[in-house]
Amino acid sequence: MRSKEDYLNSLKDGRDVRYRGEKVESILDHPVLRVTALHASKLFSLSRGFFDEDLKQEVSRYYLVPQSSEHLMQRHKLIYETTMSCNGIFNISQAIGSDALFSLVLTSKKVDKNHNTNYSSRVTAYHNYAKKNDLTLAVAQTDVKGDRSKRPSEQADPDMYLRVLDVTDDGITVNGAKAHTTQGPVSDELIVLPTRAMTAEDKDYAISFAVPANSKGLKFIVRPIDELEGNSSSVLSTKDYECESLTIFDKVHVPWDRVFLFKEHEFAGTLALNFVTYHRFTALSYRSASSNLYLGATSLVSKANGTTKAPHIHNNLVNIVMYKELMRMSAIAAAHTPTLDEGIAIPNPLYTNIGKLYSNQNFARILEGLIDTAGGIIATMPSQEDMVNPLESEIITKYLAGATQGEERIRILKIAKELVGSSMAGYMMTLMIHAEGSMEASKLGIVRGYDGVSESEKLVEGIFEN
Amino acid sequence: MRSKEDYLNSLKDGRDVRYRGEKVESILDHPVLRVTALHASKLFSLSRGFFDEDLKQEVSRYYLVPQSSEHLMQRHKLIYETTMSCNGIFNISQAIGSDALFSLVLTSKKVDKNHNTNYSSRVTAYHNYAKKNDLTLAVAQTDVKGDRSKRPSEQADPDMYLRVLDVTDDGITVNGAKAHTTQGPVSDELIVLPTRAMTAEDKDYAISFAVPANSKGLKFIVRPIDELEGNSSSVLSTKDYECESLTIFDKVHVPWDRVFLFKEHEFAGTLALNFVTYHRFTALSYRSASSNLYLGATSLVSKANGTTKAPHIHNNLVNIVMYKELMRMSAIAAAHTPTLDEGIAIPNPLYTNIGKLYSNQNFARILEGLIDTAGGIIATMPSQEDMVNPLESEIITKYLAGATQGEERIRILKIAKELVGSSMAGYMMTLMIHAEGSMEASKLGIVRGYDGVSESEKLVEGIFEN
Amino acid sequence: MRSKEDYLNSLKDGRDVRYRGEKVESILDHPVLRVTALHASKLFSLSRGFFDEDLKQEVSRYYLVPQSSEHLMQRHKLIYETTMSCNGIFNISQAIGSDALFSLVLTSKKVDKNHNTNYSSRVTAYHNYAKKNDLTLAVAQTDVKGDRSKRPSEQADPDMYLRVLDVTDDGITVNGAKAHTTQGPVSDELIVLPTRAMTAEDKDYAISFAVPANSKGLKFIVRPIDELEGNSSSVLSTKDYECESLTIFDKVHVPWDRVFLFKEHEFAGTLALNFVTYHRFTALSYRSASSNLYLGATSLVSKANGTTKAPHIHNNLVNIVMYKELMRMSAIAAAHTPTLDEGIAIPNPLYTNIGKLYSNQNFARILEGLIDTAGGIIATMPSQEDMVNPLESEIITKYLAGATQGEERIRILKIAKELVGSSMAGYMMTLMIHAEGSMEASKLGIVRGYDGVSESEKLVEGIFEN
Amino acid sequence: MRSKEDYLNSLKDGRDVRYRGEKVESILDHPVLRVTALHASKLFSLSRGFFDEDLKQEVSRYYLVPQSSEHLMQRHKLIYETTMSCNGIFNISQAIGSDALFSLVLTSKKVDKNHNTNYSSRVTAYHNYAKKNDLTLAVAQTDVKGDRSKRPSEQADPDMYLRVLDVTDDGITVNGAKAHTTQGPVSDELIVLPTRAMTAEDKDYAISFAVPANSKGLKFIVRPIDELEGNSSSVLSTKDYECESLTIFDKVHVPWDRVFLFKEHEFAGTLALNFVTYHRFTALSYRSASSNLYLGATSLVSKANGTTKAPHIHNNLVNIVMYKELMRMSAIAAAHTPTLDEGIAIPNPLYTNIGKLYSNQNFARILEGLIDTAGGIIATMPSQEDMVNPLESEIITKYLAGATQGEERIRILKIAKELVGSSMAGYMMTLMIHAEGSMEASKLGIVRGYDGVSESEKLVEGIFEN
Repeated sequence: MRSKEDYLNSLKDGRDVRYRGEKVESILDHPVLRVTALHASKLFSLSRGFFDEDLKQEVSRYYLVPQSSEHLMQRHKLIYETTMSCNGIFNISQAIGSDALFSLVLTSKKVDKNHNTNYSSRVTAYHNYAKKNDLTLAVAQTDVKGDRSKRPSEQADPDMYLRVLDVTDDGITVNGAKAHTTQGPVSDELIVLPTRAMTAEDKDYAISFAVPANSKGLKFIVRPIDELEGNSSSVLSTKDYECESLTIFDKVHVPWDRVFLFKEHEFAGTLALNFVTYHRFTALSYRSASSNLYLGATSLVSKANGTTKAPHIHNNLVNIVMYKELMRMSAIAAAHTPTLDEGIAIPNPLYTNIGKLYSNQNFARILEGLIDTAGGIIATMPSQEDMVNPLESEIITKYLAGATQGEERIRILKIAKELVGSSMAGYMMTLMIHAEGSMEASKLGIVRGYDGVSESEKLVEGIFEN
Repeated sequence: MRSKEDYLNSLKDGRDVRYRGEKVESILDHPVLRVTALHASKLFSLSRGFFDEDLKQEVSRYYLVPQSSEHLMQRHKLIYETTMSCNGIFNISQAIGSDALFSLVLTSKKVDKNHNTNYSSRVTAYHNYAKKNDLTLAVAQTDVKGDRSKRPSEQADPDMYLRVLDVTDDGITVNGAKAHTTQGPVSDELIVLPTRAMTAEDKDYAISFAVPANSKGLKFIVRPIDELEGNSSSVLSTKDYECESLTIFDKVHVPWDRVFLFKEHEFAGTLALNFVTYHRFTALSYRSASSNLYLGATSLVSKANGTTKAPHIHNNLVNIVMYKELMRMSAIAAAHTPTLDEGIAIPNPLYTNIGKLYSNQNFARILEGLIDTAGGIIATMPSQEDMVNPLESEIITKYLAGATQGEERIRILKIAKELVGSSMAGYMMTLMIHAEGSMEASKLGIVRGYDGVSESEKLVEGIFEN
Repeated sequence: MRSKEDYLNSLKDGRDVRYRGEKVESILDHPVLRVTALHASKLFSLSRGFFDEDLKQEVSRYYLVPQSSEHLMQRHKLIYETTMSCNGIFNISQAIGSDALFSLVLTSKKVDKNHNTNYSSRVTAYHNYAKKNDLTLAVAQTDVKGDRSKRPSEQADPDMYLRVLDVTDDGITVNGAKAHTTQGPVSDELIVLPTRAMTAEDKDYAISFAVPANSKGLKFIVRPIDELEGNSSSVLSTKDYECESLTIFDKVHVPWDRVFLFKEHEFAGTLALNFVTYHRFTALSYRSASSNLYLGATSLVSKANGTTKAPHIHNNLVNIVMYKELMRMSAIAAAHTPTLDEGIAIPNPLYTNIGKLYSNQNFARILEGLIDTAGGIIATMPSQEDMVNPLESEIITKYLAGATQGEERIRILKIAKELVGSSMAGYMMTLMIHAEGSMEASKLGIVRGYDGVSESEKLVEGIFEN
Repeated sequence: MRSKEDYLNSLKDGRDVRYRGEKVESILDHPVLRVTALHASKLFSLSRGFFDEDLKQEVSRYYLVPQSSEHLMQRHKLIYETTMSCNGIFNISQAIGSDALFSLVLTSKKVDKNHNTNYSSRVTAYHNYAKKNDLTLAVAQTDVKGDRSKRPSEQADPDMYLRVLDVTDDGITVNGAKAHTTQGPVSDELIVLPTRAMTAEDKDYAISFAVPANSKGLKFIVRPIDELEGNSSSVLSTKDYECESLTIFDKVHVPWDRVFLFKEHEFAGTLALNFVTYHRFTALSYRSASSNLYLGATSLVSKANGTTKAPHIHNNLVNIVMYKELMRMSAIAAAHTPTLDEGIAIPNPLYTNIGKLYSNQNFARILEGLIDTAGGIIATMPSQEDMVNPLESEIITKYLAGATQGEERIRILKIAKELVGSSMAGYMMTLMIHAEGSMEASKLGIVRGYDGVSESEKLVEGIFEN
């Protein structure tokens, strides 16, 4: 398996990454993007191997196609523990790519059966390539979408969803842009998936493929990471963080052996849906781990303030524990009641979506709990620069003492501020609502294909008879 | 295993049951209590046997002490399916008693180890007795409690918690009263458990035992079942329902072989706590089944009204599905992450309590969803007597037509009214908040012994180091 | 002004009232409906007169058309105090009728201007008639509606909305049925309003008029009042309560001088809307008064239980106070920022609807607070018949003692049970969600015609310029 | 009245202001603090005068002691409109100081009556001084508090609450620190109030006084304004913003004529409480104005995305309108039901606190609504630097088009990001929970002195009698 150094060195490959209006010549030398690369690289220091019988070599457990509840539980724990090893920040490097691969493995078999195609063997070859080389994979799914009231083929500009521009003997050329690509600039490859179900009219948009991050025509315009650059007292985001990009495909060429769906529009939805189910299961796993940041900060700050016995503080703690463990609970239930399809175990979409929706609807509640517990001081406390200024540090330390000494209380207040009183609050709140799909998407995921309504209708109808 | 008839006949045993100020001479001839007995008797028509290797006979699966996740999942499904077979109404007959027995099996071993007592063999003998005779068991736990700001031994009246009054060679005599005993009047036996942890001062209150329902001095004062008697259009409660009683112990004698805890006050809490964990797991199982009543009624009434496509109606449906499946999800997670103690599998108390608390906090939301969907007509519609009056039935049926014919819409409106617009609403809302423990008890259950806070504190502390 | 006796005697006028499948020959002799009549009659014992300059006599303050904030505040207090004088139960007798009259006074002027009609003088004459005779007026607005996905003229049965059947020189004949008519059977007259805005196709349904309660062809089919008949421990509903009916119009004749809208379909919405605004203002006023029942019961039961110092009980109390006073707060704000139209003061629809929506969304929360505070005993306590049985009353009283004596605690538990553990809970919850319009109606009422969105858009747009 | 220039020039007075570890030599030349000074200065361009009969000159309406509902409504509108004139950002310059003065005017009369002191005349003199000179006043109330489980006199370090250090003939010397002082560094003077009720043991902490901002020993350590410095796409905070400081009192001398409370500990609570009531009324007024930012952004972004017709977007809009108008509604109700004390009108504390608590509990909901409406792009969009880079601006503008052109959509997305996806989200969420007092403080404010509980208990008790 790959070493951390190999991974980091591989990033010097000419990829086109932009940050704040400038081309990033060397990611490892860039003050911001190096944090995201180093964060990703932590994966390579963690124990995560299993022996692959086909390849006859040890490969990353992330790439093991789940075939049982046990596999899904192992995956849940792997993601939970990896997140904990990265200071509570999700490490997406092999998680999202394998989520996409599982859906491709599954969906390609179905497409092949219906269209007499050979996508399945292409996916297997690509899967083996990823395993052998211990690759990090980003996934680009969400199109920029233009006018949300119109379908892909109805947009004024045909590029608002990624599309096939040209077809040749050796492959296809694509145009368009994908939003919200996480860690693309520090991944080896990019898997592209359709964003939604497609109709026959939209068939030019029903495509899936994989390309290296340094492909010609591929450009990553990275979001500005104000959490890291705009908060001088930050301690977490300077250690572990991820980046997102608006990812531009300007006539990117894809050879046929890396094309996994090509205009078979009726399978765009299947491919998208199975991916999001796996990816929401991943979300439950990392979100339960990440919520330890808020739980730990709430507990520690209440001790620093001397308010552990106040009933409303106790309630705040109960709520955060409930949030964290409800995430985990839904992952466990989803893992133990999987859908088995083509020999592959899919986490129960119902429990996956319920956990996801609860997270969307309640994340701000745990922020509120930490804010309520910490006090207004996380908004108004002096800056890191004041604290290191010898003229002022003494007086600040004196006056910010609580039930603990000033130094100790300031330390926990800084974390609390970073989590809920700084730009990380806005960023995380947006992520916890939109990442891995909106609330409306989860609501749809809960009732779509749910057979429990007819069970319940039969029960009610039966009362008149039994 | 026992037949339905055997069970029903066994109720004629001289037990002292009071209903609306009168002694009930024959339960089967009583217009109200017969419903609860017939409901209980349904258990004996259902497939529920397993072969007990010790007793060399088939016994009820309810009495199988769970030793694995698989056992717990089987138990979850058994309770879910039994509830579904009883028109969505919980059948407690062997559920709560076995919940108590599991805690007694577990706790008696611990007491014996500490006090060199022989409770364990007594419990085993009693457990075998229950299995051999396929008994129905009620549980009396909640004391009447008097002034809630005082402990048992501090009460003005010493009987406010059940207590040892006298001790002789052949057993003990007890005095007191237990509230909320479900189905006691139609059960074979009554298991008594302490309601809470006890201090040394309260040791006279730290008792547990079992007595037959017709014990001398034992009196059941049953609540009035207005759901059945006070709503002439009710269709559900006239078929399946349970009763609760205030249960009086007036110098009841208990022989030593049926005494399971006697003043070992430090184990009162353990016994109570393990019981409630099992019983809340039971609650998750029946509550998910019962919620089908609200889900089915909501779906059917929206069809009858012609509002299935309205966005707020769709939201109501999503919320009820989420409620039902969150119950089930927590049961599945609790079953798959059990605590193993003395070779016995206890459902994970954390997930059990989280599911329970969610139910407490959100049950009224599903009532609101059904009310919103059904419309005000469930409050103001004519009576059952009007509907059978030939003078009026025609005109009512004409005017209560919706997207379906009047007869059909009225049928579903009647169920909707029974569920949310009648005394069942008040009764169920009270139960869903208080049965199996209050919200504060579940909150305590979530943080008590929770080791995830220190995990989270370590994570936060570690940020400064990693 | 009329005496209580005059009012009660006037009910013997041959009106066609049905209760539980039977014709009610004498309301005052009917065990259930007499409660609703006596409740209504309390109005005539209260001080409520003002001197009408036009009629040169003292008339009921309910009939004063509000022309200022002061008038609206007086009306708010009048309704609040009347409700308090009726044990917390709304007395609709002259409240809803005057709400309808205010809308008719206003709308008829607008119709006359547009259609050169003389509705205004008819309304004035009818208003004077009501004032002179100190009438009680019910209002029938909500049609039975049939298939909710279709408009009035699209229904399979043309009678699903009340409609003009025939027109003659001396008046019109109408057919149809109205749901949810409150206190119709014990009112002098019935005012009929359209239920919604109407299109030209629906013009036969755009009608408004008034008829005496004993009109030929008018039939009241009253809901069964289980709160009163089905709960032997009830103390409130046996003293003060109202009734609702499904009200049938079977070829009812209306003379022209009592017709207030006749096919001027474009004013159906105006008439309906102004009525509901007045009526929701009335709702805020009585709901704040009624919520004292829950507040008082919560406070008293916590004292009886000895739990006044528990933090979660304190929170329950805060929530109920907030509920009650938020109702009042919205009424005060609506009264002080009225819309003035045709010289008439309309309570601010925005604040009226916000208060109403808050009530819809939060009423169940106050039930939950009382249930949480009271304990499960309100579901499982013995019946009233047990409590009067000398054999049992002593033992029940002993064991239901709390921080107060048994007698006193039982008294407050009975009220708590009636409010939240009985059929009144289901009935009130349905009312508090649907009465005076659904939640969707209030949401629409909040944004309809709201000019604050453009104010806010301008603010945001302005940031780039200022 | 003072000109904007006069105000700005007056800031050059040697005051000790620290920002990010450095002394600010000239506020007007400081890139960050100048924004807060210019923001404050906008007050002087607005029409806000009234003719003071005592002083015989025009003075600021902020300083008019309210004596009627009309005065309170004028004040509500003044604050609302000033906020709207400052791009939705509160302008505290004369608002908080006058809130403090009103409480001092009121409380000093009570102290004088009890202690035969002459505080009232000192307060009047100071009030006139403020009016004559059209001063801007900051208020320092919240002490740093140390261990929250201990009272002022119990703290390990006696300086954790501001205290009297020394007393001389010409005045007092004080030591301590106040947290969260808003706009102190750009105000003329600072009024100091006690943070809470005090016992006799705490009497050294029961002090109130006023000092100029450039007093010897007074030091403002300003919070770092990351909203302005750490988000290059910010448009709002670079135009209008306020600053907060940790304010140090290092042996600050106060002459007697500026001391308004001196060890009369039993009035510390009165002074604090009346101030917070006025200040929460101010909060309702500015918060309703500020919420227009979220309302306008939500409406505009839904138009830009093409989602105005989606039901969940409509619901988001309804919720924000309800939030904004519930703030205003509570202000209107509080203004129209004032407490009159010593001839001064105090906004009804009940409605003031209810509105405040609703704001605390629901502000995050309006953030969630805007996030849900805007989409994840507000977290992941390219930076301002990318947008101005000609190489990239064209492609970004192409791909961020929605139902409107890219330029226009990007503009509104930037505002949406600033409001909910950046450090302003964390800062504002903390403020909206803690500013003007915590949620627990508001809950206490709702039940403290509330006489409606006894009204409700009487109602319930009366049911048995009436």
